[in-house]
Amino acid sequence: MTSKAGSSCLDRDALIASGLRQDLAVIRQAALEAVDPYAAVLDHLSRDGSQVAIGGQHWDLDQSSVVLLAVGKAAVPMAAAAAHVLRDRLAEGVVVTKYGHAAQADLPASVGVIEAGHPIPDQAGLQAARTCIERLHSLTSGDRLLVLLSGGASALLPAPVPGLSLDDLQATTDLLLRAGATIVELNAVRKHLSELKGGQLARLAHPAPVASLILSDVVGDTLDVIASGPTAPDPTTFGEALSVLRRYTVLDRVPQGVVVHLQAGLAGEVAETPKPETVLFGNVTNVVVGSNYLAAEAAVTEAERLGYHRLLLTTFVEGEAREVAKVAVALAKGVRAHGNPIPAPACLVWGGETTVTVRGRGRGGRNQELALAAALGLAGMEGVALMALATDGTDGPTDAAGAIVDGTTVNRVRKQGWDPRATLRDNNSYPLLDAAGDLLRLGPTGTNVNDLLVLLIA
Amino acid sequence: MTSKAGSSCLDRDALIASGLRQDLAVIRQAALEAVDPYAAVLDHLSRDGSQVAIGGQHWDLDQSSVVLLAVGKAAVPMAAAAAHVLRDRLAEGVVVTKYGHAAQADLPASVGVIEAGHPIPDQAGLQAARTCIERLHSLTSGDRLLVLLSGGASALLPAPVPGLSLDDLQATTDLLLRAGATIVELNAVRKHLSELKGGQLARLAHPAPVASLILSDVVGDTLDVIASGPTAPDPTTFGEALSVLRRYTVLDRVPQGVVVHLQAGLAGEVAETPKPETVLFGNVTNVVVGSNYLAAEAAVTEAERLGYHRLLLTTFVEGEAREVAKVAVALAKGVRAHGNPIPAPACLVWGGETTVTVRGRGRGGRNQELALAAALGLAGMEGVALMALATDGTDGPTDAAGAIVDGTTVNRVRKQGWDPRATLRDNNSYPLLDAAGDLLRLGPTGTNVNDLLVLLIA
Repeated sequence: MTSKAGSSCLDRDALIASGLRQDLAVIRQAALEAVDPYAAVLDHLSRDGSQVAIGGQHWDLDQSSVVLLAVGKAAVPMAAAAAHVLRDRLAEGVVVTKYGHAAQADLPASVGVIEAGHPIPDQAGLQAARTCIERLHSLTSGDRLLVLLSGGASALLPAPVPGLSLDDLQATTDLLLRAGATIVELNAVRKHLSELKGGQLARLAHPAPVASLILSDVVGDTLDVIASGPTAPDPTTFGEALSVLRRYTVLDRVPQGVVVHLQAGLAGEVAETPKPETVLFGNVTNVVVGSNYLAAEAAVTEAERLGYHRLLLTTFVEGEAREVAKVAVALAKGVRAHGNPIPAPACLVWGGETTVTVRGRGRGGRNQELALAAALGLAGMEGVALMALATDGTDGPTDAAGAIVDGTTVNRVRKQGWDPRATLRDNNSYPLLDAAGDLLRLGPTGTNVNDLLVLLIA
Repeated sequence: MTSKAGSSCLDRDALIASGLRQDLAVIRQAALEAVDPYAAVLDHLSRDGSQVAIGGQHWDLDQSSVVLLAVGKAAVPMAAAAAHVLRDRLAEGVVVTKYGHAAQADLPASVGVIEAGHPIPDQAGLQAARTCIERLHSLTSGDRLLVLLSGGASALLPAPVPGLSLDDLQATTDLLLRAGATIVELNAVRKHLSELKGGQLARLAHPAPVASLILSDVVGDTLDVIASGPTAPDPTTFGEALSVLRRYTVLDRVPQGVVVHLQAGLAGEVAETPKPETVLFGNVTNVVVGSNYLAAEAAVTEAERLGYHRLLLTTFVEGEAREVAKVAVALAKGVRAHGNPIPAPACLVWGGETTVTVRGRGRGGRNQELALAAALGLAGMEGVALMALATDGTDGPTDAAGAIVDGTTVNRVRKQGWDPRATLRDNNSYPLLDAAGDLLRLGPTGTNVNDLLVLLIA
């Protein structure tokens, strides 16, 4: 009561800022817990005696038992949860995960663990795929196949068709990307050069019923895109794959085996990928058990519990991080000036995955770059904090998951001699945010559902 | 009932698309009417005998009469509305507007009309400013000054301090912009090199009470930024203006007279711009009568009347048009997939002003470029239409106000041989959208409150 009005006001602002940061930590925790791979599997898999409920499917395990195939960066915790539920009804299993991700795997002896290359597929992955394909072939209608998919599965289990090497696939992908092909076009080609992608894993398992529990790392959670859709129907054809190569005029530059195989497919000499109407999929269940949407929903729910008005904007955000950041700033200003889109105290959340066009030589990641760009736009605003978060804990090639910035970030680093605009131009967000004390260092979170942006306006 | 399912479905989609376009036309009409300059002045100015109500101020014109100064691209219709209300109580007036904007001016003989240069100030504007300054000087407490401001006013009424030329001001502005100064920093300098900007027009009019009715063309409607705030307090100082020149190391490159004047101001030899606490402003009223926010509000209100769920997101959108477009696409996908941020049928509106970094050699404008980028993201989506609109009717150096695109735009132009991605890279949105039949050609709308984006999801 005796402090000067000026300093008391500063204290109040500092208190609000620190309160917002604490709230962001609580909201982050709730969001990550909602997409914990172990918990996500437990939420969608239950057993009562010989009866197992899995997504919408029910399995009677009185006469049969479960074969497990878990692939992806979260394969170990997902497999552990399945083993915990299925116990003795789990006959055998294979877990394929990224190097370093199998440590402390608490799995029954019947489940083998293979580490393989990611994001560049390697021989270990190739060997794992061969093993899986043989085992899938031998399944009978008495078996039940439980597939657990998470981010990275496509690279970890590469299965080029006979006559093609990993290098052939990589060369084809590179040519198409450089020519400007979209991810949808690219996938149409890749699925037709693989023995597992595009629903073919489910077909190999036939006549065994298949259930896939999926932790989605794809914006939009499209089943035939996540992990290249090994258990989902493929709407694309050999003809379309060839059209893509023609459209981008790479037909005479891709490895010759690629064209030979696609033309054989077009001529009916190789089986098409299974289509949506195939009877096969009557026996297949795909369930997204963890996604950016679930994390975003958990974030706004927690924010509401903390007393904020809530709005989940969208989970489909893409675009250049520094430009997309300006829309986040615009939203904060709208709340402040007009109570749009919702009145303060407000929590706005969006999800997705932005990109960074690297023009400088600095260090950072898409979330850090977004945060720095937002900090420039928020400079001087009071009672606003923004968190940009890579849910896997790794934003770009750094040890940070992202950052929390507010209206003071830019001034704080300017006092240390930083030029925030020049730093952004150099794509050098990491050291600046580190100097500001605004980096989020969480370590690996064990999950991966792309990125979240949480904006709090007091 | 006898048509095939396929074609009936196509008809239905076409019907929905055409319905959305019709609704966008109705919404656009409502938004533009809400910021019509003539109507906006009528809404905030009324007379009952000798009593005039103007914003929050009341003038008794029993012993006094009104002097009018209208400056900007919408000066003529705004002045006409004021003359219509004030009638014989309007003693005299000056209207300064852009070349070609004074045609069909229906104004009393006591109001002189001057046309001047915009966006580059010229001698005609300089002369108009000298005339205004002399008349403002002669005002007494018996006079009432009504100022009507709209976009372009700053360039149309240039008043460099003695010793500086228009070229000196232009050179200073160019140097700062190239060095990366922000608009706030630039304005701090410009206000201290002018006799009218930064509240100085209001000071010249003192002791006459002043009321300003303002049609805002500035994102955020900040009073001291619109038209460089001739009747608004200026928070910046001579010292800050010099700091800006130092910060961007242009102190020894700007015209010498600029530095001389700023240093004289710092030494107290020239009066500071009037500050917010100045008693002067007790006699001054500033009212924003038309703004992007009012247009956006009218848009969502009309959409609601048409049966859509409504959400005004923000009116502060800035950023690179093609990237910001991706956020609009993300919002459309969110409505479709999850009913976020609001369920369908949905109308999402935002306002602001995007930018285009020109890298190609094509023709277009920021709204057309945003629309083309959005069309790429919306390709194949049904029941979605997006309007990107420059409210003044002129988007970039084209005769279009923007465009309406939907999920069919990209396919329609591909069939004509266009490559939409390559066209976007070449900043060539205008001819592509023209070929698509998706351009909006409205002619000059008579108003200018930046840009609106309206997204309808059926």
